[in-house]
Amino acid sequence: MEKELIFGHQNPDTDAIGTAIAYSYLQNKLGYNTEPVALGEANDETAFALKKFGFEAPRVIKTAANEVDKVMLVDHNEPQQSVSDIDQVTVTHVVDHHRIMNFNTSSPLFYLAAPVGCTSTIMWQLYQHYNVEIPQNIAGIMLSAIISDTLLLKSPTTTDEDKKAVKALAEIADVDYEKYGLEELKAGTNIASKSEEDLIDLDAKSFDLNGKTVRVAQINVVDLPEAMERKNAFLKAMNAASASENYDLFMLLITNVLDSDSKALVTGSDDAIAAFEKAFGKVADSEISLPGVVSRKKQVVPPLTEAFN
Amino acid sequence: MEKELIFGHQNPDTDAIGTAIAYSYLQNKLGYNTEPVALGEANDETAFALKKFGFEAPRVIKTAANEVDKVMLVDHNEPQQSVSDIDQVTVTHVVDHHRIMNFNTSSPLFYLAAPVGCTSTIMWQLYQHYNVEIPQNIAGIMLSAIISDTLLLKSPTTTDEDKKAVKALAEIADVDYEKYGLEELKAGTNIASKSEEDLIDLDAKSFDLNGKTVRVAQINVVDLPEAMERKNAFLKAMNAASASENYDLFMLLITNVLDSDSKALVTGSDDAIAAFEKAFGKVADSEISLPGVVSRKKQVVPPLTEAFN
Repeated sequence: MEKELIFGHQNPDTDAIGTAIAYSYLQNKLGYNTEPVALGEANDETAFALKKFGFEAPRVIKTAANEVDKVMLVDHNEPQQSVSDIDQVTVTHVVDHHRIMNFNTSSPLFYLAAPVGCTSTIMWQLYQHYNVEIPQNIAGIMLSAIISDTLLLKSPTTTDEDKKAVKALAEIADVDYEKYGLEELKAGTNIASKSEEDLIDLDAKSFDLNGKTVRVAQINVVDLPEAMERKNAFLKAMNAASASENYDLFMLLITNVLDSDSKALVTGSDDAIAAFEKAFGKVADSEISLPGVVSRKKQVVPPLTEAFN
Repeated sequence: MEKELIFGHQNPDTDAIGTAIAYSYLQNKLGYNTEPVALGEANDETAFALKKFGFEAPRVIKTAANEVDKVMLVDHNEPQQSVSDIDQVTVTHVVDHHRIMNFNTSSPLFYLAAPVGCTSTIMWQLYQHYNVEIPQNIAGIMLSAIISDTLLLKSPTTTDEDKKAVKALAEIADVDYEKYGLEELKAGTNIASKSEEDLIDLDAKSFDLNGKTVRVAQINVVDLPEAMERKNAFLKAMNAASASENYDLFMLLITNVLDSDSKALVTGSDDAIAAFEKAFGKVADSEISLPGVVSRKKQVVPPLTEAFN
């Protein structure tokens, strides 16, 4: 069987990497020949989860067409979040939990998306559908993905299916998910050792909103005031990135993972800032408080999409 | 629960109408409040199948936003094949077996597509996934849809899943699927009583291929030479439709459902004809033989998409 690569989005998070590993295991059991890879290095949180369950970080690729003709995507579908030469390969499978945007194919494919908190929740259902037993380490990395995406089931993106998946996977992985979950989330909040340039790119996605390129980055912390001490340095890095990458708007969402409180830093053209303010209210001195806003997918992208239209 | 409409594509076929009926029954069992509707009158074959299994033809709608805020799509996703005001409503669910093209949403949704011969095959799997019993009449209309889309399992789009679904559904519906299938297909081949204008619009879809609008219509017959006696009248109707609807290319695929032999009539701009010929070879006197080409989705759209790019 011809080899296919499976990967999540650029700036991979625990869902992008963990679900790629889980899908590759499942597809290989079903007769495919796949390898899970990543479009970037694992972040601190993901590295913690991989180590906990005994995985090496997947190989990082920059392009796909030099290796394979066909790929499978998890946790994304938008071309600008995918591998740079996505237009040179055929996408045969997608498993995702995001909106669908600019994803076009010339042939039918397998596509499964559901409005749940994490792609690994859908993956857990797929394992059940195909009646494939989930090994302990695969259950652990899927559990880690759901904890990451739902902030331990506290994000408004969390559904009953995510809760069911967490309970079932924690049992297979043999961990106390509340205790492990806090350890995992805290592993991703060590921002002191990283530069602002790195931090604004760790978990960042670009969106095409009515012709404007909007960059939304998010960092998790356990101390918001401490993070905000670096505000001017963040803004400088965001402006530099916007200038070099032609972003019309750059939003950095800084979220306290312990109490789901957030602040955002925002830079961009006057038009783009005006659209942002239509969605979220007045930005003062490039800053806005967004209490309870923890989900880029559910609480940031939909209002921004509407405001830009 | 807020009401949602479920419908298939314009110029509905047995899959579009039958799967809408089956999905509505399933979703209502799962707690949704849905009504299956259609974007056009049932064709002869679909009317035969509906009558056989005791269904009234679904209500025909021209717009959706005047009735509901949310809709579910079956057997299509491309906006130009959908209800005219699709941009005014939110799509919450899609079940389909086609390529994905120009389908964009602002929020996550349920989307299930698979490269199988008929949407009803996926629907059969969904009933199993949700563990919902399939009533005899629903099994019958889903069976009819698969027979229609796969030309009684003879089209190259046919997969093992389609075959399994046909066997399982025929048992529940309590029919001999080979005998019933021939009756159903023949019911759709009565072209003598219809005008050329009607025939080129009965099962027709428009595709945006690299900026060109390509119309592909298909009619099923049991006597190709008899159908070709009306060639000039077909071409006249195709040219008139192209002029009024700005089609760059109009292809009419005439298929003998008994032996899977086809001829095509083709009209369009010189550029578009040149692209068509890149895909299928020389068109002589607006006509080309395409033996074995019976599937628009698998054998027509992919090579045309490639040729236009």
